[in-house]
Parts: sequence; C-alpha cells; structure tokens
Amino acid sequence: MKQYYTPDAWRIIEEGFDPEMSLASESIFSLGNGRMGQRANFEEGYSGATLLGNYVAGIYYPDKTRVGWWKNGYPEYFAKVLNAANWIGICPLLNDVPLDLAECKVSDFRRELNMKEGTLHRSFTAEMKDGTKIRVTAHRFLSMKEDESAAIRYAVKSLNYRGKIKFRTFIDGDIINQDSNYDEKFWEETEKTTEKDRAFLTMKTKKLDFHVCTGQHIAVTKNGEPTAFDATPAERTKYTENLITVTVAPEDEVTVYKFAANISSENHAKQDLMKRARAVTEQAAAKGFDAMLDEQREAWAERWKMNDVVIEGDVAAQQGIRFNIFQLNQTYTGEDARLNIGPKGFTGEKYGGSTYWDTEAYCLPFYMLTAGQETAKNLLLYRYKHLQKAIENAEKLGFKDGAALYPMVTMNGEECHNEWEITFEEIHRNGAIAYAIFNYIRHTGDSGYLKEGGLEVLVAISRFWSQRVHQSSAEGDWVMLGVTGPNEYENNVNNNWYTNYIAKWTLEYTLECIEAARGDSKFWSAFTAKTGFRDAAETDRWKAIARGIRQPRLEGTKVFLQQDGFTDKELLTAADLDPAERPINQHWSWDRILRSVFIKQADVLQGMYFFEDRFDAETIRENFDYYEPKTLHESSLSPCVHAVLAAKLGREDKALEMYLRTARLDLDDYNHEADEGLHITSMAGSWMALVEGFGGKRVYDGKLSFEPMIPSGWKSYRFNIVYRGVTVSVHVTREKVSVSNRSDRSIDLLIYGKPYTVAPADTVIAEV
Amino acid sequence: MKQYYTPDAWRIIEEGFDPEMSLASESIFSLGNGRMGQRANFEEGYSGATLLGNYVAGIYYPDKTRVGWWKNGYPEYFAKVLNAANWIGICPLLNDVPLDLAECKVSDFRRELNMKEGTLHRSFTAEMKDGTKIRVTAHRFLSMKEDESAAIRYAVKSLNYRGKIKFRTFIDGDIINQDSNYDEKFWEETEKTTEKDRAFLTMKTKKLDFHVCTGQHIAVTKNGEPTAFDATPAERTKYTENLITVTVAPEDEVTVYKFAANISSENHAKQDLMKRARAVTEQAAAKGFDAMLDEQREAWAERWKMNDVVIEGDVAAQQGIRFNIFQLNQTYTGEDARLNIGPKGFTGEKYGGSTYWDTEAYCLPFYMLTAGQETAKNLLLYRYKHLQKAIENAEKLGFKDGAALYPMVTMNGEECHNEWEITFEEIHRNGAIAYAIFNYIRHTGDSGYLKEGGLEVLVAISRFWSQRVHQSSAEGDWVMLGVTGPNEYENNVNNNWYTNYIAKWTLEYTLECIEAARGDSKFWSAFTAKTGFRDAAETDRWKAIARGIRQPRLEGTKVFLQQDGFTDKELLTAADLDPAERPINQHWSWDRILRSVFIKQADVLQGMYFFEDRFDAETIRENFDYYEPKTLHESSLSPCVHAVLAAKLGREDKALEMYLRTARLDLDDYNHEADEGLHITSMAGSWMALVEGFGGKRVYDGKLSFEPMIPSGWKSYRFNIVYRGVTVSVHVTREKVSVSNRSDRSIDLLIYGKPYTVAPADTVIAEV
Repeated sequence: MKQYYTPDAWRIIEEGFDPEMSLASESIFSLGNGRMGQRANFEEGYSGATLLGNYVAGIYYPDKTRVGWWKNGYPEYFAKVLNAANWIGICPLLNDVPLDLAECKVSDFRRELNMKEGTLHRSFTAEMKDGTKIRVTAHRFLSMKEDESAAIRYAVKSLNYRGKIKFRTFIDGDIINQDSNYDEKFWEETEKTTEKDRAFLTMKTKKLDFHVCTGQHIAVTKNGEPTAFDATPAERTKYTENLITVTVAPEDEVTVYKFAANISSENHAKQDLMKRARAVTEQAAAKGFDAMLDEQREAWAERWKMNDVVIEGDVAAQQGIRFNIFQLNQTYTGEDARLNIGPKGFTGEKYGGSTYWDTEAYCLPFYMLTAGQETAKNLLLYRYKHLQKAIENAEKLGFKDGAALYPMVTMNGEECHNEWEITFEEIHRNGAIAYAIFNYIRHTGDSGYLKEGGLEVLVAISRFWSQRVHQSSAEGDWVMLGVTGPNEYENNVNNNWYTNYIAKWTLEYTLECIEAARGDSKFWSAFTAKTGFRDAAETDRWKAIARGIRQPRLEGTKVFLQQDGFTDKELLTAADLDPAERPINQHWSWDRILRSVFIKQADVLQGMYFFEDRFDAETIRENFDYYEPKTLHESSLSPCVHAVLAAKLGREDKALEMYLRTARLDLDDYNHEADEGLHITSMAGSWMALVEGFGGKRVYDGKLSFEPMIPSGWKSYRFNIVYRGVTVSVHVTREKVSVSNRSDRSIDLLIYGKPYTVAPADTVIAEV
Repeated sequence: MKQYYTPDAWRIIEEGFDPEMSLASESIFSLGNGRMGQRANFEEGYSGATLLGNYVAGIYYPDKTRVGWWKNGYPEYFAKVLNAANWIGICPLLNDVPLDLAECKVSDFRRELNMKEGTLHRSFTAEMKDGTKIRVTAHRFLSMKEDESAAIRYAVKSLNYRGKIKFRTFIDGDIINQDSNYDEKFWEETEKTTEKDRAFLTMKTKKLDFHVCTGQHIAVTKNGEPTAFDATPAERTKYTENLITVTVAPEDEVTVYKFAANISSENHAKQDLMKRARAVTEQAAAKGFDAMLDEQREAWAERWKMNDVVIEGDVAAQQGIRFNIFQLNQTYTGEDARLNIGPKGFTGEKYGGSTYWDTEAYCLPFYMLTAGQETAKNLLLYRYKHLQKAIENAEKLGFKDGAALYPMVTMNGEECHNEWEITFEEIHRNGAIAYAIFNYIRHTGDSGYLKEGGLEVLVAISRFWSQRVHQSSAEGDWVMLGVTGPNEYENNVNNNWYTNYIAKWTLEYTLECIEAARGDSKFWSAFTAKTGFRDAAETDRWKAIARGIRQPRLEGTKVFLQQDGFTDKELLTAADLDPAERPINQHWSWDRILRSVFIKQADVLQGMYFFEDRFDAETIRENFDYYEPKTLHESSLSPCVHAVLAAKLGREDKALEMYLRTARLDLDDYNHEADEGLHITSMAGSWMALVEGFGGKRVYDGKLSFEPMIPSGWKSYRFNIVYRGVTVSVHVTREKVSVSNRSDRSIDLLIYGKPYTVAPADTVIAEV
C-alpha cells in the first residue's frame, strides 16, 4: 500500500511527474459520463508507457477466443469493450518538434481530478531539448449534460520561445486494443471529412458493424482573445487532423479549445452519425467552454445532492468514498437498459468490459438506493432479456427442460469466458441473479416485477440447481460436485457451502414466489404454458433438495466448511505469509494457491452477508473468526463484505481497515494493478461497506432499519438512500443518529431496533 | 469401431479409394526408421484433406505458447515436432495437368503396408478430366539400414495417352505446421542447389537453429530400361524441382526413381549437410532401388527375429500386434539417447512429438525386453540428463532443496505444457520415472545404474513427494491435495490413491536403495556432497509419510477409493451411457465429465498393475470389479492395463476384448482420431497386454516367471524376450507352454510357479 496521491476531500491530486506511476494515474484520473469514458491519457501523446483508452458504451468486439486446450462447450468468441478513436489529440510542436513528456524536462507537474465538478486539470512546465520552455495548462471534461460531448481547453504559454507554434489537433482511429488476442485491429474507416477548423472520422468495427463517428471543432485564442490562425487539414488512413499554426513571443499564451463528440450507431442511424457529430460539436463550440463547464458543475451538483457521502474527521476515508461514488456515476447512469457495469468501467480493457455477477451481488444496492427503482429495474431487465440465451447456454452443458445458466461473462447474454473451472463451474453467479430479484423487491416493494419476468428467471435458475445436484451414493444427501465458489483460489471443489446454500435459498424463494403467483390464475396459466412448469413434479424435488443439501460444519462449532475436505488443509493464516509473496496470485503457482488454505475473497462470509437474517449472531461470529484470518482479499470484491460483517460484530478496527481497503483500493493500489484500470464494481461495495457496515442499514420485514456505529477517528458521516420511493438522509455523529425524510411521504423505520415514523421533511434522532 | 482395412497377418491393406478415410490412412500407412518418419501422403500431392508429415528425429520448435488465461509457472513455449520439407514429391503431368486424386476418376486403388519388409505400395488407375488414363504404381520405404536414406519407385503406365509426360520431382520446404499456435511458419531457407537430376535444399528453423538438408537424386526408366530424359531445374523460395519430361505411347510405362535423404544438424556439422546429402543420395542411386530394398528386407527380418509375436488362429489379433510392433520399431530404435518416444511417433503433430510419462509407464518394457538393456538404459539416461531442469521446474512451483518435478511434456527437460490441472497437478508422472528405474534394474539386474544416476533421480523425486504432502489438520494423516491422477477425467482432486501410493512406494524404494548405497562409502560421501542429502533429517520424514499417507477404502471392502469423496458420485457404469454420447470427451462439457463417475483410463488399476505383488488377489479382484465397469478407455493407455489384470483374474473375454482394443485401436479407430496420427506409446501397451497379460510374464524375487493363458479362439502364440541378457522364446498352445533358451547361458525361471532351469538352446515344456 502506498499513498501517492494527496489526500483531499473533493480532489485527487498528483504532484510531480512520475513515469513509473503513469499507467496507474491514467486509470485514476479517468473521466466518464455513462455514455463514454476516457483514460487520463495526455492530449499531446506520450512515447512512454501508456494505455490509450477511449470507450463508447455498448460498443464491443467478439474477438476470436484464445484457448490453450479446447474443451467442449467453450464459446467461440470473447467479447471485449473496444478502444475507439483517440479524440483528445492536441499536440503542440515547437520548432517542429512535438511535445512529448518522455522526451523533455518536466517540472511543476500537477494533475487534479475535481470530483465535485467532474473535470480533469493538468499543468506542467516543459523544457524541450533545444532549451525552448513552455507552460502547459490542460483542462477537460466529458459532459454529463450532453453525453455525446466533451471539451478540452489546452493552453500553451511561451516562457522563452519566439516563433511559430503548431498544434496537431487530430482524431486518430488507428487504434490498437492491447487486449486483442491475435494482435488484430478491430476498426476500419468508413468516411471522414476534414475542414479548416473541424474534422470528422467515422469508423466501424470489423464484426457486428458498430459505427462511431468522432468529431472535433477547434477554436483558438491568444492571450485570451480570439485570434486568427492558419489551419491546414491533413488526412491519412483512419486519421484526420487540423494543423494549426500561431506565432508567439515569450509570455504569449495560446489556447486551443477542442469541442469533441463521439456519436454511436447504438443511438443513431448509421447514415446520420457524421451529421449528428457536426451538430453536436457546433452547438458545443457555440455555447463555449465556460458555459459547458457551468452545465457540468450543475449536473454533478445534482448527482452529488443524492449520492454524496460526507465523512468528517478522516480525509482519506472521505476521499476514498467520494472517488468511488464519482467513478460509479461516471460508469453507469442507469438510463439505458442495454448497458451494464463492467468491472473496470471505462478505465481499462481488462475483463473485456463485460457483465459479471458483480452487478447483482455488489452494484445493485448502490444504484438502487441512490439512483432509484427504475435504474435498478433496468439492471434486472438486462438479465431477463438474456434468459433465453441462458437457457441455451445450459443446454450446451447438458441441462434441459428450461434450466438456465447465466454466463459468467457476457456482453449480449452469450457466455464469452473460457476457463472450464470458471465458465462451467463458477455457477454461484446464477444464485446472485436470483438474489438480486429478491433484493430489488424488498427494497422497492415492486413485487409486480415477478410477473414481469422475475418469476421466469427464478424458475429457470431453480431448474438448473435441481439438475445440477444429485443424491450422494454414499450418504444419500444432496451434493453439488465440481464447482468453483466465489473464492476463486479453489477450483472444482465439492459442496462449496456458499453455492449449496444459495441454491437452497433460490429453491425456497422460488417456491415462495410460486405460491404467491398461483393466486393470480390468469397469470399462472399463462406462466405454466410458457415455461412448461410441471408443478409438483418439479417442486417436490426442489423441496427435497432445499431440505437435504449438504452443509457440513466444523465439528463442535457453528462454522460451515467452505467445501468438502477443507480441514485437510494446512490451517495457516494470512499473518503466516511472507509479505514479499503477496499478492500470492503474482508469486505462487496455481496448484500451490489451490491447495493452500488462503481465500481470495469472501465465500462462506459472502453467504453470511447475503443471508444474515437466517443465522444467529454466534454463527456469524464463529464463521467470521474462522475465515477472516485466512482471507487475503486479492479480489477487490472481498473487503466490502468483511467490512459489513465486522461492523455488525462490533469489530471497529477490522471494519475500518476493510472499509479503507475497499474505498482506497485503487488510490492506494493495494493489489498492484491500478495500471490496468480501476475496480469499478467493487466501488459499489465501498458504498455498501459504509451504508450497511457503519450505517448498519438493513431491511427487516419490509422495514428499513439502521444500527449505526462510528469509527473512533471520525467526527460524523452522512449518506442518503431512497427506500420504496422515500429518500432519507442519515447523519451519524459521535453522539447521535439523525434520520431525515426528504420526501413527501412519511416512512416507518427502525433505529437500533426501535420503531420510528418520520414525517415528510421531519428528522428523528436517536442516541448512538 | 469399424473394420476398414483387410485383415492379413503381415500386411495392412486398403482396397478402394475413400477420401473420407484419407487422413486416417495417411496415419495408418506411415513409414519410419527411428531417424525420420513420413505419413502416407501421396507423392503427387492431393488437394483433398491431407496432413503432410515428414518428421526428422530430434528437430523441434519452441512455438509461442497459446494460453487463454495465464497462470504463474506456465512455460513460455510449447515445443513441437516439426513438419520438415516434403521430400516425396513426384507429380506426373499429362497434357500439363497435374495428377490429383481429388480431381480425377480413381479406380482399382490399392494401398498396402508390408510390415515384414517395411515398405509401402500404392497402385491405382486414374482417368483425367480429358479422358487420359494412366496406371500408377508407387513403392517406397525409409531405409532401416541407412537411416538418412529413403527411396521411391513411382511408375506411370499410359493406358491411352500419347505424348509428353512431365514429372515434377521436387523438394518443398514451404511447410505449414498444422499445429502452429499463431499460424507461423517455422522454417527458413539457407541454401539450395538444383542440377539436372538432383536437387538439395537446406532449411533451418527460425528458433534453435536446427538445420536439415533434404536431397533428391532422380533416375528414370522407360519400360524397364534406362532412358534419356529432359530435365529442367526449377527453383523458387524454399522449393527446388527437377522437371522431367518423357514421351510415351499407350502401354508405355515410365518409372521415376527418387533417392532421397534427410540430413540433420543433430548428426552432422551444419556446413557439411549438403555435401552429406549429395553423398548419401549418390550412394543410394548407385546401389539402386532393388538392392536397397533387399537391405531393407534384411534389416526388418533381423528386427522381426527378436520382436515378432506370432498368433495363430486369430488374424485380427495377429495383424494388430504386428502393426503395433512395426510402428514401435519405426519410431524408436534406442540407438540415440537424445531421442525418446512421442505419443504419435512420426505419424502426426498432436502432442507435439514430445516425451510424456508414457515412455516410462508403457514403452520401457517393450524396448527393454526386445531391444535390450542398452536401449532401456538410454531411456533412463534421457531423464537423468534432465534432472537439473526437473529441479528448476520444481523450484518454479515453490519447491526447494533439490526436489525435482519432471515435466509433463518435454523435448529438452523443460516443461512445455500449460494446463494448470495437468502441468502443475498431474504429478504422478514423477512416480513413473522412479518406477522405471526399479523396473529396469529388476529386469536387467543392472543395479549399478543406481550409482550412475538412478539414486540421484530417486532422491530428487522423493524430496518432491516429501514436500508435496502435509499432515491433515483434521486427521493428522499425510495428504496430497490438488492433484490429477492418470484418470484425467478428474482434476484437482485430493488424495488420488494412485498418486499417493506411488509416492509412498517411491519413498520406500528410495530408502531401500539408500541403504544399499550407503555401504559404498566412497560413493556415499560423493553422493551426499553432491545432493546435500541430510540423511535422517530427510529419511525420518519419508518413513513417516510412507507409513501414514492417506489410502481410504470403500467401507467393508478392499476397494481403494480413487480419491477423497469418490462415493459421493452417481455410481453409473459405462453400460448406462448412450452410445451416441461416446466418446464423452467429444460430446460432454468438461464439468459434466469431471463430476461423473466415468474413468478415462486405469487409475487405481494402474497402481494395481505396477504393484501387483503388493496386493492379494482378492484386493485386485475387488478393485477390478469396482473400477472396470466405470472405465471408458478414452485414453489409448487404458485397455492394456485392464487386459493384463483381466488375464491375471482369469477373465478371458474381458482380457481379449481389452487386448483387441489396444492392439487394433488405430486400425479399427475406436476413439475416432486415427486421422491425427497413431497412438504409438499405447502400442507398447499392446505388447505388454500380450506378454504380461496372456503370457503372464512376471518377475518374482529376481526370477522370470510365466503363467500363460490362451484365448479360446487362438491356436497358439509365441513371443521372445530378453531377460538379464538371456533371450527366451515362449510358445503357448492350447495344451502346453514351451520356453526355449536362445542364448548361451542357462536361466532359472518359473512356469505356473514351478521352477525350471533352461540350458542354452534347450526348451522346457509345461502344461497349460
């Protein structure tokens, strides 16, 4: 863990230029607006280590799968989010030498992400090899208001240079995807136009025929005044440029404004893309940078009004959670049911930008309880729309009769991962998708969703569990062999407790929902006709499985064994490890990891977290004490769950440690991988760690409940959530908990188990 | 199972041309001489499905590894045997149209592999699209006497054609390796010479700098008489050709003789390769085709004298075993300790032509007991030379202090396989390498080999086992977690019985050898100095492990459980499977295979086979009856072991079924994969099934023993083996067993447990 960025409540600040940190900083300072995202690459380009990243939501590529050894059932392709045309390009040339921070002396470098406003600033002084010195100040944002728009203000002040400064302002579509399996390029050009002060380039993907037009509209000032400039259009394949020339003397400052747009065929007819790009950039240029920036501030202020979490007394904790919330808002706005939340969002290529169980298990609560019911429902509908493909996926693996196995990794509902121990065996993902339906309904009260698709999904998943288990020949109980649980440091184990338990829970919940739905005879007959549901023939087996599925415990304790045979392992703890060998996934061979006791991420404890109200406190405590010391948190998704449980158990230090680990995971780069992009989905876990962990937010019998605690170093914290349409603000100080109702309906809730009714605009107060 | 080839005692015969069978027949009719091998590709080329294959022993390529998902410890490259320059090319052109069996009417097609002589014949009538008809008779062999030499006689008789026949006689080095991971070509040209009737092309590999010069020397006759011919040299990159033109009338027959050579930098200085190729082809041409053929017959007769297994009364059984022995002789002659036995020999690219545990577990007995001690020792030395690399390999995986893990797949001692569940976990291979030392010594009596390297290998392997196990936290016994046994339809299991048992055995045998070696104090002090052996500190732990390693049994029986948790599976048998779903590895997803009870190849039974004398007959019977019905034999290495055990248990039908399955595996293509090449290593298992199964050959207390049985449909069978320098012939009829001593020393042996002394040239007879 290193603390490289300056702590600050609203800003991420980098002081000084460290090429070693450049890739990580490109990730940290990423911008996005839900429709597109951009790593913090330098406008002028950089010949050092860099990962160019401009991502346009919904645009992906079915790359040829790369497999060492093929297995039946593997997908033919791996979908990956695409790096699209580089639209930020503004490269100053002095004496015809392009500025390149790897090739000049850099001083007074400062980079700042202003999270309150959603803007990125960068400034530095560069001394070129010929002694020419300039001061550069760059400022950019991706508009939250006009989500196809972005603006850059790039100012170069001559410190000792006299002569012509040229600026290559360009759009470069000749993009490499670092993650391409066979070093192929995925884009080809369809058309381009280059004029004096504007340029437009439309590219299309070689497969799937996605089109994106990227446009720029350039304006230039000198010493703050509009100025005449020479501009030469230049083109080559997949590239267009307006080369601008301005003459300067020392102390003159030339500012290039670039109003850019990324227009996607996901949202417009292909033949209109360039027209639209022209219109969008023209409007932006007409509005001007400062007016757009005002809009940006307003849009973010609006977001923060609901989203912000305020922590007083701990700037690192404050910065962490704001950074997480900021990135979550940049990644997904919930407005488009076709989209989902990639593990790295728009900040890197890893994990292909696809949808994982992260969405249901970690992200749903944040979006549901801050953006609200419609956003959450869009996330459920995303999976409902993929149900048929999940059924086909299960069929490929030998299942039948409408059983569904949702893919581990997907862009369009088809599986696109190809490690047998994950693809075929990490099937607990199915359970998280069922759990999300339950979780949605209990928070929104929208039980009507069951009839809109929820029950179909539940039945299909229950059918899968029902076929995936069988009765042990030796013991007669129901067993599930050959699975990988959430702890991916075990593969192909038998009777992973978490998977068995979520299967059992799914069956029980589906049975419950069926009972409720059966009352609506019209719905029920349509449902059975559509799904071929055979009632007792299916439900009797489900009941037997739910009753009899294997759940072994550590003898004489309430500890559930993570899987059969777990106690044959050498029972070490994380403290026994040489720190130089951590993370073990970067130091140990896979077999050594697998046979070790070490846990990558919460597994039994993930189940305790989901189903907390089904276990007594003693059971939770014993399991926590058994598994926590063995857990390495080498998955980003782990600390948040431990934080929630530690807080519940009153383990303040552990809760805070885990909270900081999730909230500052990328800022402090715990797992040495920020260079690849940020851990977006686990950022929702940070919010969960705060709201459910410290805030003690729960739902009991349909009632919202809080049992807050406050870490001893904090003065107070504050968050908002929307529950069944009512927004409440929770403010926890060292002395008291205040819950305010910001809606026009009253709400019944519990604080420390005591019932309160909070009238609109009213606040109730309880002692900590 | 299909019976496509005509049964015959000494020949494999294909009648009629079936393009569907073409790839499989290319494998079946392969030729080799230990130094090189050649699939039965057509001399004239073929535009239908074909896999060109010309392999030169010892030449391989470290191809870039292809991995879906990288794991620490994976090798950087995958070594693969290389398709080398195509040297067989002789393509007749009529009216300038090249002959291509995919493009003309073919009749009277016949192909014959003469196993007695080691020659391949092919004849057919072709009618070209323009009505031209010719009769082609091709005859070729790879010289067993001059192992860099090969000869082809290619005769074309005009049936109705009058005019010029051209022959492209060529060497084509522009070779594709089907198995190339990134579609790269691996060869580049270094030099070539093209003269009137001879041509030479030297190619080198892009990595490792292997050089091979391929040469041809052409002669032509017309109607049996030497004839003048026009010959035009032609060259292009990686290609050289002598284009021969002869004028014919109907009924004229033109015969092209091609004397070819493959000269490798493994055996000659690089600068001499072309000179050598010229000399070899010139000598061959001077000698002539018929004289070379006589030598070939003699060389094979010499081999068959020792190798042949004669079965009377069952032509399919006879053909099968001769085919196996023939291919084994073609693959490996034991003369070069740098070479080993690839699973496909010289008949295909699959498995990269590398060395697997097949060599020690299946191939050693055949070569040791037919070719003799020196050949067997070369196979042991091959591993001894790789010991240091095996130690380095173990270090990569976290082992230390001289522990060795031999690679799963190797060309030069380095691991080159990359599936974690195999590479890191299929560690029983280490045990087979220890077992081979034991097996060698008990058959040859050469216990001196321990001091020549054997003990070093044993200690290094014992150290590995010692570090790979630990004491169960729950039970206190020694456990080995996360392994893959010989049954690769299980992965990452705990306490695979076979692996645990061979580890136990290795430790015990090593301890025994240490005790013996300790007596030689000079050797012992050098040994401990070299290996850092710490005596009691190491041996005490080994003894504890050997005593206490987990070996669970099925309750109330003598059945060893294949691994922990085995009886939780659904206990089906192969008979429960839909035949349309077999082989399951071509129909089921991997997870389904893994959680099923079905066994790919003998696993517990492999242990019963190796260590038969450590188990009572009842234990062997119970284990056989438990595991045999669950075994699918989808590995070629399985039926031989079952055949030996079935014979021992007096299960004649099962023994015969298993014998035929191994001996005719490729001829009858049980596993639908003969197109990829032949299962060379399992062919040694066929010999084992006959000699150890039906022949009941064993070694008890240093004495050779036979307890033969004879399948009821057979009249008799006969085989020879060399034991501690004495060659014995065993002849089993329905009534009696005769054992003849063909050496000049007498031998003590057992027949049905009764002791005999057989004097030189004498025969003893026992009743069946």
